[in-house]
Amino acid sequence: MVVAVDFFFLDLNRTGNTSNPFGSRVTSVNNNQLSGLNTLGISLVHIDYAPYHLNPPHTHPRATEVLVVLEVTLNVGFVTSNPADPNQNNKRFTKYLNPRDIFVFPEGLTHFRFNVGDKNVVAFAGLSIQNPGVLTIDNVVFGSDPSINQAMLTKAFQVEKRVIDYLQAQL
Amino acid sequence: MVVAVDFFFLDLNRTGNTSNPFGSRVTSVNNNQLSGLNTLGISLVHIDYAPYHLNPPHTHPRATEVLVVLEVTLNVGFVTSNPADPNQNNKRFTKYLNPRDIFVFPEGLTHFRFNVGDKNVVAFAGLSIQNPGVLTIDNVVFGSDPSINQAMLTKAFQVEKRVIDYLQAQL
Amino acid sequence: MVVAVDFFFLDLNRTGNTSNPFGSRVTSVNNNQLSGLNTLGISLVHIDYAPYHLNPPHTHPRATEVLVVLEVTLNVGFVTSNPADPNQNNKRFTKYLNPRDIFVFPEGLTHFRFNVGDKNVVAFAGLSIQNPGVLTIDNVVFGSDPSINQAMLTKAFQVEKRVIDYLQAQL
Amino acid sequence: MVVAVDFFFLDLNRTGNTSNPFGSRVTSVNNNQLSGLNTLGISLVHIDYAPYHLNPPHTHPRATEVLVVLEVTLNVGFVTSNPADPNQNNKRFTKYLNPRDIFVFPEGLTHFRFNVGDKNVVAFAGLSIQNPGVLTIDNVVFGSDPSINQAMLTKAFQVEKRVIDYLQAQL
Amino acid sequence: MVVAVDFFFLDLNRTGNTSNPFGSRVTSVNNNQLSGLNTLGISLVHIDYAPYHLNPPHTHPRATEVLVVLEVTLNVGFVTSNPADPNQNNKRFTKYLNPRDIFVFPEGLTHFRFNVGDKNVVAFAGLSIQNPGVLTIDNVVFGSDPSINQAMLTKAFQVEKRVIDYLQAQL
Amino acid sequence: MVVAVDFFFLDLNRTGNTSNPFGSRVTSVNNNQLSGLNTLGISLVHIDYAPYHLNPPHTHPRATEVLVVLEVTLNVGFVTSNPADPNQNNKRFTKYLNPRDIFVFPEGLTHFRFNVGDKNVVAFAGLSIQNPGVLTIDNVVFGSDPSINQAMLTKAFQVEKRVIDYLQAQL
Repeated sequence: MVVAVDFFFLDLNRTGNTSNPFGSRVTSVNNNQLSGLNTLGISLVHIDYAPYHLNPPHTHPRATEVLVVLEVTLNVGFVTSNPADPNQNNKRFTKYLNPRDIFVFPEGLTHFRFNVGDKNVVAFAGLSIQNPGVLTIDNVVFGSDPSINQAMLTKAFQVEKRVIDYLQAQL
Repeated sequence: MVVAVDFFFLDLNRTGNTSNPFGSRVTSVNNNQLSGLNTLGISLVHIDYAPYHLNPPHTHPRATEVLVVLEVTLNVGFVTSNPADPNQNNKRFTKYLNPRDIFVFPEGLTHFRFNVGDKNVVAFAGLSIQNPGVLTIDNVVFGSDPSINQAMLTKAFQVEKRVIDYLQAQL
Repeated sequence: MVVAVDFFFLDLNRTGNTSNPFGSRVTSVNNNQLSGLNTLGISLVHIDYAPYHLNPPHTHPRATEVLVVLEVTLNVGFVTSNPADPNQNNKRFTKYLNPRDIFVFPEGLTHFRFNVGDKNVVAFAGLSIQNPGVLTIDNVVFGSDPSINQAMLTKAFQVEKRVIDYLQAQL
Repeated sequence: MVVAVDFFFLDLNRTGNTSNPFGSRVTSVNNNQLSGLNTLGISLVHIDYAPYHLNPPHTHPRATEVLVVLEVTLNVGFVTSNPADPNQNNKRFTKYLNPRDIFVFPEGLTHFRFNVGDKNVVAFAGLSIQNPGVLTIDNVVFGSDPSINQAMLTKAFQVEKRVIDYLQAQL
Repeated sequence: MVVAVDFFFLDLNRTGNTSNPFGSRVTSVNNNQLSGLNTLGISLVHIDYAPYHLNPPHTHPRATEVLVVLEVTLNVGFVTSNPADPNQNNKRFTKYLNPRDIFVFPEGLTHFRFNVGDKNVVAFAGLSIQNPGVLTIDNVVFGSDPSINQAMLTKAFQVEKRVIDYLQAQL
Repeated sequence: MVVAVDFFFLDLNRTGNTSNPFGSRVTSVNNNQLSGLNTLGISLVHIDYAPYHLNPPHTHPRATEVLVVLEVTLNVGFVTSNPADPNQNNKRFTKYLNPRDIFVFPEGLTHFRFNVGDKNVVAFAGLSIQNPGVLTIDNVVFGSDPSINQAMLTKAFQVEKRVIDYLQAQL
């Protein structure tokens, strides 16, 4: 039997805990939290940012994200990769968003968000599927278990092995 | 050429104008307002409600809606229609939402929202497609041009012709 | 094991029983009646209409309907709602159909059919999914259990509370 | 501007002309005949059969077909090909359909229909897309221009070249 | 738990066994062989051809196929059926492919491949879904169990009954 | 008019030019090279690897990739990111592939391939859409124009600014 509780999410924790290395907290409402979203093609996140903290570069393999800032100001952006027009390759787009400003992160593009001020920032975002997934680039490339082959990473990033060592040691 | 402006929507009018019969204002950010949303499977709305006003019963033929209340309190609900289990037919589900509470209106179900208090209410919602459409039931049934056949409406609503006359005269 | 019976539906009741308030009978052949239709993206209905009776305004949230009249004459129509061109809002389209005439009811639009003559009418229709669903507007708005908030309905239809009382009492 | 004519098809020719080698006439109402069907995921056909004539083995690459017989009796069937269960390979399913009986031809399966009696038969069918396509096996294999390599066809059908010659000469 | 073996297929049998009437061997890697392909929208086949042997006319109801020849030379082709332009009906397209040449067989079209030389030929192909299915025309039409009605097949192929008898006896 | 050339790709350059920093060459056959692939849901690549060279970590936002090695041996792998089971987060899967071995890179996962030997390696792969796109992580994160905010990257990778300076200078 369908009941209202399947379609309702009570977010009691009014400010997310941002005590972590990135200083942000993403509270997700997708089909894992709310069974009523199964197959419905949408989910939502609420994000808190501590001063001077961030969402590191990441991509959603199955979703476009539309974000609205609720409080203060947020710097957001994305980078293109191998588009049809080679002159537009690896272009970075950024914008400062004020409350009620809206920004679209198209499906599959690497994006990031940075609170450049000294106040807490709050934002909401809709994602275009019930289970968007997230690929966190820094952890995937330098923080995997076991580590990615170092000989390969030195060629991928064109640096000495000690730089890869150092990067892998942080994550 | 893709430019950031295709993905950015600046909502300068901080409070929507609610001077209309329903006392609410839906500010839509879909593919008509923001070309960057084309084919991306999501859109957003910002809604202002005057005290004691509403979104009348309506349905989105192509989208599920996920709503979050930002300010004060909102009464929301939907009604089922002809589900697989006949005991669940025409069931009304409602809920009072406080700030940061989230509610899902599944694709194709008739839903409504009512500000039952004396303060302005603000909400945001994501919709699961770039062009969700909206079917406003009162206008469609009693406010069409030309009017729907009255003999048929009297049978559909099982009332006398003068009741249909009266309903059609309001919309 | 797949057997022919999964793909075959024998409609023994040659004329549907139309003894009900709307005076029509929809015999559905969708994935509830015929398991072979699962995932196949189509279903069929056979409809009998008593003289001067109808299918009241309704919408299929997941399907376009294509109807062919088999016997006598049927008046059919739909109403638009909030299309891209605001001059086309709430427009009613209708047509009288004779045997072998075909009419399309696009997905998500409110439509209705009315037998305006003194003979029984028979029609068939295909629907563009195996489980089209149906949202019967009169029952959803005025016949739900529990009832929709009357204060809200008076504002939605812009009538006095006694009119809403009366409408709710019929359904 | 949308007008009703886009959604309406008037089939003036009440009995299709069946003077052709297969003795049947398929009157299609798909997005070529009715622009209102574009993208809507459904189409319809009306089929007339002369006595003892047929729809030869064919398949719709993009559609499931649901057929209802309107007049007299029709023999219909399909053959499986390489299903998951090898014991079900190349199984033929057939059924005699009387008026108002319904049969499903699942997407991609080879099917056929045969009027085994001495009366004209009439049927309607819905197809699960606006442009279903049809692959007529006899014409494709033995009637193409230029002809398919005969050495290959002799191996495919495991017959002598003169049999292929003869089959190709008929179509 | 996901493990690498779900995504890995070891093709130990380096040359497929071609001792069968068609003289070819299709080694499929689809979701039956490799569970990691479920829902992922692609599969692969490796094909060995004995000299002067073939893949007989067939169609994939759910997939486009893109083939690359690895060794020697292969004659490939497809035939159109009932396209929008009637002048293009039943047109046969063929091509000789050398190593690293690539050919596309669009979804739903009947196609075939023939090794016209005296050497073994090797090819790989990708298919646009995890479970493409295959409809082998000769077996479906003349090798089904039970047989398709002979009276109908004589009309479909416009030949005498003894020709149909003969064709059915081979398969 | 459809002609065979739309469905045929002649790969005259038998060995791709691998004189570039990554020492590999991807020859793509997607809808940009072959118009016949439009909407068909598949594409193909042929890849040459110089000794000790690679495809750096990348992801295809719209495609699963299925790869087969044709010559010599290739080390391949992918890394998970934020799966449903947190114990499986950032897990690296790798495998050595010999000729005719097949490996699946599921849609949206970061993957890489490394020729660990002293011979040229050749591989083919199918991708589950006609325009798969590719997100090359090293270029996107450290090689964009303009550069991504360094203050943010130092927090994302948890390193000093001079490490980010150095990484950005290489790409």
